[in-house]
Amino acid sequence: MDRLPDTELVLVPGGTLITDTPEEGRALAMLMARHTIHNIQPDLDVLKEGRKTYASDPDSLIASSQVIAIEFQTIAAANNYWRKA
Amino acid sequence: MDRLPDTELVLVPGGTLITDTPEEGRALAMLMARHTIHNIQPDLDVLKEGRKTYASDPDSLIASSQVIAIEFQTIAAANNYWRKA
Amino acid sequence: MDRLPDTELVLVPGGTLITDTPEEGRALAMLMARHTIHNIQPDLDVLKEGRKTYASDPDSLIASSQVIAIEFQTIAAANNYWRKA
Amino acid sequence: MDRLPDTELVLVPGGTLITDTPEEGRALAMLMARHTIHNIQPDLDVLKEGRKTYASDPDSLIASSQVIAIEFQTIAAANNYWRKA
Amino acid sequence: MDRLPDTELVLVPGGTLITDTPEEGRALAMLMARHTIHNIQPDLDVLKEGRKTYASDPDSLIASSQVIAIEFQTIAAANNYWRKA
Amino acid sequence: MDRLPDTELVLVPGGTLITDTPEEGRALAMLMARHTIHNIQPDLDVLKEGRKTYASDPDSLIASSQVIAIEFQTIAAANNYWRKA
Repeated sequence: MDRLPDTELVLVPGGTLITDTPEEGRALAMLMARHTIHNIQPDLDVLKEGRKTYASDPDSLIASSQVIAIEFQTIAAANNYWRKA
Repeated sequence: MDRLPDTELVLVPGGTLITDTPEEGRALAMLMARHTIHNIQPDLDVLKEGRKTYASDPDSLIASSQVIAIEFQTIAAANNYWRKA
Repeated sequence: MDRLPDTELVLVPGGTLITDTPEEGRALAMLMARHTIHNIQPDLDVLKEGRKTYASDPDSLIASSQVIAIEFQTIAAANNYWRKA
Repeated sequence: MDRLPDTELVLVPGGTLITDTPEEGRALAMLMARHTIHNIQPDLDVLKEGRKTYASDPDSLIASSQVIAIEFQTIAAANNYWRKA
Repeated sequence: MDRLPDTELVLVPGGTLITDTPEEGRALAMLMARHTIHNIQPDLDVLKEGRKTYASDPDSLIASSQVIAIEFQTIAAANNYWRKA
Repeated sequence: MDRLPDTELVLVPGGTLITDTPEEGRALAMLMARHTIHNIQPDLDVLKEGRKTYASDPDSLIASSQVIAIEFQTIAAANNYWRKA
């Protein structure tokens, strides 16, 4: 097993939901989703195999984008939607 | 690999969740969902192949529309539902 | 390709999330979900083919009803749940 | 085609999201979800056929219960969670 | 048909979303999800058959846990997240 | 049957949704999701078998990450998004 480094297992990278911009918030949403999966499956070899499948399967891509949308709801609310930004 | 241009990879096009109208907010929801997928799979050839499948599969279309609905929840809340618009 | 007319592609028909009654809000939820799909797949022939499948498949019907439920959450919140109506 | 009567097509039966009790709110959630499906598929024969399948398929039952959970979120919020009830 | 007793069909057991603790709120979430399914399929024999399948299928278990998560969102909000508890 | 110990069946480990940091909140989200599944399927042997399947199936991993995202929405709201943390 090629175990991911610990930095890839941090659940909330940066330790906060607050970001300066929507763009950074969205990037955090993607990162948090990915790190959740790293915590469930920390074997890089398995993850790489899986990527071959899901990254070219439209339904998997749609499902992935839904997870990001849900994570982003939380982050956007945390930042009051960056209304004054 | 035919990599998407950088403009297609911006996570929050325009850099804000605030829009003038619900119509523009909805368009942003669609754009954000699409750009998330671009970030997961930036190869245009793979995306074009996928489109052939999902765009004529009712279940994929329903799943896609659900992602847009979720993105729109966030954008609509950010804009206080355009109540005075 | 038998392209849908432009009216079928408006993302937020009526241009507002505010409706007089819950019934109208629910109808708007259905319309918005449908028009999202029209924007992803504007070919009426493909949509008609898809309908044959999903409209008699219980799982597709359940999935469709979930999208409407999510859209309605947004519209109901926008209208403060029509509490005084 | 054995078309459902109009009463089965009302999107928000009773015309309001406000109910006296959580129990009634939950019943409304079930009714609204069902009537959405009636609007997508108003042919009673097709619905009856579908029921044979989904009502004994655990995954379909789980998916159905999720739709009810989402509808109920909206109705519970509309009623301020019946906190004083 | 071995019909479930009426107590298994109550949609909101206890008649309120308010609970003393998060633990009880979570238990209510599980109960409400289960009773929704009982209302769609009240035949105990069919439910027992289904359980054999879904309780050992990881995807069904994940789907079930998602329904509980959604129900719990509502109950937690109703209880102001038991912040003072 | 190799039944899980009672500690693995606590629905809200720690008895509160309040945590000091987002990282701990996220860990709680994962724990709550897992314990829900333990309550539905308390047989460790069955769970171990299931893990072999879902932990290397990208779609199952995506579905799992979605459940965590939903649980985290609740916990983040409970903690006012750790805005002052």
